[in-house]
Amino acid sequence: MIIVMKERALEAQIAAVQEKIEAYGLKAHVFRGESKTVIGLIGDVSKADPAAFRMLPGVEDAMPVGKPYKRASREFRGERTVIAIPPVRGGDRGLEIGGNGVVVMAGPCAVESREMLLSLGAYLKESGARMLRGGAFKPRTSPYSFQGLGVEGLKYLAEQRSIVGLPIVTEVMDSRDVEMFSEFVDLIQVGARNMQNFALLKALGQCGKPVMIKRGLSNTLEELLMSAEYVLNAGNEQVILCERGIRTFEKFTRNTLDLSAVPVLKRESHLPVVVDPSHGVGHWDLVAPMALAAVAAGADGLIVEVHPEPAKAVSDGGQSLTPRHFKEMMEGLEKVARAVGRSLA
Amino acid sequence: MIIVMKERALEAQIAAVQEKIEAYGLKAHVFRGESKTVIGLIGDVSKADPAAFRMLPGVEDAMPVGKPYKRASREFRGERTVIAIPPVRGGDRGLEIGGNGVVVMAGPCAVESREMLLSLGAYLKESGARMLRGGAFKPRTSPYSFQGLGVEGLKYLAEQRSIVGLPIVTEVMDSRDVEMFSEFVDLIQVGARNMQNFALLKALGQCGKPVMIKRGLSNTLEELLMSAEYVLNAGNEQVILCERGIRTFEKFTRNTLDLSAVPVLKRESHLPVVVDPSHGVGHWDLVAPMALAAVAAGADGLIVEVHPEPAKAVSDGGQSLTPRHFKEMMEGLEKVARAVGRSLA
Amino acid sequence: MIIVMKERALEAQIAAVQEKIEAYGLKAHVFRGESKTVIGLIGDVSKADPAAFRMLPGVEDAMPVGKPYKRASREFRGERTVIAIPPVRGGDRGLEIGGNGVVVMAGPCAVESREMLLSLGAYLKESGARMLRGGAFKPRTSPYSFQGLGVEGLKYLAEQRSIVGLPIVTEVMDSRDVEMFSEFVDLIQVGARNMQNFALLKALGQCGKPVMIKRGLSNTLEELLMSAEYVLNAGNEQVILCERGIRTFEKFTRNTLDLSAVPVLKRESHLPVVVDPSHGVGHWDLVAPMALAAVAAGADGLIVEVHPEPAKAVSDGGQSLTPRHFKEMMEGLEKVARAVGRSLA
Amino acid sequence: MIIVMKERALEAQIAAVQEKIEAYGLKAHVFRGESKTVIGLIGDVSKADPAAFRMLPGVEDAMPVGKPYKRASREFRGERTVIAIPPVRGGDRGLEIGGNGVVVMAGPCAVESREMLLSLGAYLKESGARMLRGGAFKPRTSPYSFQGLGVEGLKYLAEQRSIVGLPIVTEVMDSRDVEMFSEFVDLIQVGARNMQNFALLKALGQCGKPVMIKRGLSNTLEELLMSAEYVLNAGNEQVILCERGIRTFEKFTRNTLDLSAVPVLKRESHLPVVVDPSHGVGHWDLVAPMALAAVAAGADGLIVEVHPEPAKAVSDGGQSLTPRHFKEMMEGLEKVARAVGRSLA
Repeated sequence: MIIVMKERALEAQIAAVQEKIEAYGLKAHVFRGESKTVIGLIGDVSKADPAAFRMLPGVEDAMPVGKPYKRASREFRGERTVIAIPPVRGGDRGLEIGGNGVVVMAGPCAVESREMLLSLGAYLKESGARMLRGGAFKPRTSPYSFQGLGVEGLKYLAEQRSIVGLPIVTEVMDSRDVEMFSEFVDLIQVGARNMQNFALLKALGQCGKPVMIKRGLSNTLEELLMSAEYVLNAGNEQVILCERGIRTFEKFTRNTLDLSAVPVLKRESHLPVVVDPSHGVGHWDLVAPMALAAVAAGADGLIVEVHPEPAKAVSDGGQSLTPRHFKEMMEGLEKVARAVGRSLA
Repeated sequence: MIIVMKERALEAQIAAVQEKIEAYGLKAHVFRGESKTVIGLIGDVSKADPAAFRMLPGVEDAMPVGKPYKRASREFRGERTVIAIPPVRGGDRGLEIGGNGVVVMAGPCAVESREMLLSLGAYLKESGARMLRGGAFKPRTSPYSFQGLGVEGLKYLAEQRSIVGLPIVTEVMDSRDVEMFSEFVDLIQVGARNMQNFALLKALGQCGKPVMIKRGLSNTLEELLMSAEYVLNAGNEQVILCERGIRTFEKFTRNTLDLSAVPVLKRESHLPVVVDPSHGVGHWDLVAPMALAAVAAGADGLIVEVHPEPAKAVSDGGQSLTPRHFKEMMEGLEKVARAVGRSLA
Repeated sequence: MIIVMKERALEAQIAAVQEKIEAYGLKAHVFRGESKTVIGLIGDVSKADPAAFRMLPGVEDAMPVGKPYKRASREFRGERTVIAIPPVRGGDRGLEIGGNGVVVMAGPCAVESREMLLSLGAYLKESGARMLRGGAFKPRTSPYSFQGLGVEGLKYLAEQRSIVGLPIVTEVMDSRDVEMFSEFVDLIQVGARNMQNFALLKALGQCGKPVMIKRGLSNTLEELLMSAEYVLNAGNEQVILCERGIRTFEKFTRNTLDLSAVPVLKRESHLPVVVDPSHGVGHWDLVAPMALAAVAAGADGLIVEVHPEPAKAVSDGGQSLTPRHFKEMMEGLEKVARAVGRSLA
Repeated sequence: MIIVMKERALEAQIAAVQEKIEAYGLKAHVFRGESKTVIGLIGDVSKADPAAFRMLPGVEDAMPVGKPYKRASREFRGERTVIAIPPVRGGDRGLEIGGNGVVVMAGPCAVESREMLLSLGAYLKESGARMLRGGAFKPRTSPYSFQGLGVEGLKYLAEQRSIVGLPIVTEVMDSRDVEMFSEFVDLIQVGARNMQNFALLKALGQCGKPVMIKRGLSNTLEELLMSAEYVLNAGNEQVILCERGIRTFEKFTRNTLDLSAVPVLKRESHLPVVVDPSHGVGHWDLVAPMALAAVAAGADGLIVEVHPEPAKAVSDGGQSLTPRHFKEMMEGLEKVARAVGRSLA
């Protein structure tokens, strides 16, 4: 942090700033200029709050220098993190997220029935999807909306994995459920509404399974990285970041998919970045162009909603692709992936 | 919901819409016009999603009519909800939130020490505060920031209540902690970041204690009312709504305090409305004018950060009033409360 | 500006930064620390762009210190600016905006007819309004909406002033019209959509009439002050700032009225601050509470839409008060103004 | 528009709604149901405001059905609009925007000197750019920032066209300058800050030259289409839409580039869509990935800032590509264009 003193700051005021810095266990470095004095902080400044310094008499401004995330930062690791999803019974091979291959996760918004999962899963696998998504516990704005099949839904997902062979990604909503999810799920998703549910993040930091954190509706990318930091700091290094659209005033789309998140996060962090175009735009006909754009921008993966009969879906039908549209999109994705020097995983 | 069919919609398309409506257990009401057909839904439409109808062939648009919240709606109750906080040992009288008296809750951002709480609490009580606020579990963007004293903090708060006599309001962050909070706390707060932590809301719906829900950083007021609906629907009728600022692009303030939330929520709902000007603006010198404005706009209460030495606060010092500034603000508040036909509780 | 060099910045890199600073005609001040070097800029830094420095090799960060506005800043003038609106024929006395009295401007969204202006104006004057608002040139999102009566509307406004005696405030939309407005209008308004129409601002800087600038839909308060700076810098010192709501995701209100703009602008600037609750909320029943709140927050004036028959208004009827509601609001305003040590002008 | 009456609406209230509809010269169509009555409007509803109906007694809600833009809508024209930029002296061939070829416009943020334009223009042309961008009149937040070379800048641009052969695109800021721009400029740009400068749009509607309208910082895509409608309705059919990022709370990027604007605008309108990744992200290293993504999403063109020495640029250096980076980007663009079945123009 850099603290700029006012032009006529008194020596006692400068001393008070130094004292406060040292109270944090940090070292103050005083730069004396002709008309102004500037004070720099040395050491681990993560606990020093610029706002606290701006309140001191004689201080003109206090500005953070450097980044608040460490373990999530690109500098922390010499190389990019690649998350390995182990091979599943019925699955031919393991899977890597964050490598050269772009991983496509697909499936219904909510798990609705065992049969649907099995037949849809088989079609998706054949079309190139490498993981099955599907909500068992559903975060719904209204208590009167379908809340998901719960544990039963998790079991259907797991059964699909045994039979069809696609590893599963699904959302956890309650810190009390983390242990159960660790048993059933290959990649545990933190939904946008829980991005800053710090109790949940801490619990996931100890679960031993890969975690994918979705950006909150109005969270900055720095905050997303800080939420990743919670999981990393608690001991779990398998974290994936997911852009899924932010809330703006625009009405044609459900959210505004911020694709610049992809190159920003790849520059700032070593963690893999996945994009969810379905929630990002909210209308099935916009999903494919945004999926292509996400891959062109450098995404390591996509998570896409597909439903055999979108008009009959219990939730989010309007943003779900039909299986046929999904297949068409996959063909386009492969071409764009190649154009940017990658391939589909 | 009203569904508008396209001009040349086929009879079979109209029939398909009717069928889908009936599949929800609702009744379709078809209005046939010269050039267009309009279909209305009758019955409990809370489970019917307009997006699902917009996908059907021949449908031009589908629009919700009416409000998705019931128990939180003003029509649901003949009168305004008044939350009673029972008298505490050492406290002279009980307290009502939502009545004519404007309730001021004040205290430090975080509980820092037993001594500070006791002396500050006594000063605040004398200055007119009726409840003590203070975080024991702190939601912090960074895992490296002070996370609160935890259970120890709750105990200090309770001790203050016994000795000084101010009932306490503090934030719960984890569904696993709800039971413990129910023992210690008079008013359990759901923070902005947990407004849509539905697992937590459901748990609070069964806790038997009053709950104050803060609006999320980018949540609409309708969503705030739906979060209240979760608690109400689970059986807990003691819910307070709190406006604490939304996230915008403005930089002079930490958030943008949306005071129009006060008259909107009072019009839409029977629940009491509290305003948090401290988080809303993030700078102590803006707190008093916004507190006065909140009361002028009709707020039933305020929750304000006060710290004996803001520059030494472990968190959010920059937005904390000194005890002296708090006292001055209280004098102003009383005048404005009277000007709008109310008083300080 | 403060430029922080990277830890292992080379001497040549430091020299390049110094050189660039001097190329702007500024003086570089180098603070050498143990591990880092910090460089401060002295002189008029308004033309030096931090982004340009962040691009230089060896630079870690560059941060502006101080404010980009000068003439609009509170420090620039020893005292608050009070705008005098001269007495008009038929008007009993002159008017001051920015003094102790809170000035209420009221009238229809659009000028519709001569008769309506005269009868409404008389009622408003009797109820305590001190200026008449009314759009002659209307900024409408659609080219198919009513675009205003144009010059004819200006003439009706001026006729009202002669007969009823209320000075007029109305919006200019085109730099080609500034001269004409200077003849007819007492206070020329720049609408939100033109806040950064710099050609218009420059023209107004030379018009000799008071100018009220409305904050743009997504502009920061700093940008509002910079737009004022355009007018001030071009030689016109009579500038009023107006908060009228910003665009957010909230749907109950047309915009989100940011009342914290009032204390922020009063702290940062010497210019008077007016609030427009009608556009800020967009629904007549929310106007009065927000008007009271604006005065409690310290506003110097209000601009409010009133229409004799809102349901028949050609534009914005839904946010217009009836004359009776306006009168009721004025009674409330007087009480709140007194509660905060002011009065109605 | 559809108007839903309350359940127990009186016949007189229904009649009043009908009357108001007929006062607009429209036809009311009354659908009577068992418990509710719904009224539809037939005819040109562009002048009927739902808000005006919501105010009438007995009305529950009023909802627009259909789109407010006509000439800009995809239905209005059987085919996509292709804008022809005529061949220039020194240029080998004409240019089409909106056809299969993706048009790249490139150049410095501001015109700085004749020499720079000539040498940079030659390099850009060789690298595949088809138009030269460069600001002669610059919209700057601060009156103290460089305001552009003005007419002199336009002359340099035109000289480049004669010598190098690239047609030019540059921003007009003042309705008084439209005539002059029509002489010098091949494609006249309306900047984001002037998107709703309706006087300027009307003037451009009569200028006879192609116009490119940039989306405002917080404008919806519907509003962008309505601004296009102003130009189209005034008689100019040569309009291009440009997405350049919207303002959000995110701090890593200058704006949030909303690439979903591309498929939305292509679905809603027949007009060509161009993307400006430079202003959209504000940092040169993010420009190339977002340019690739824009083409993958279906953009008809790109407008990109390039500067021979970004660190010395008079404005926006931080977001400018060097010529070498531009050339590299063009190679990537060609591959992505082919992957989505297009080519570079």
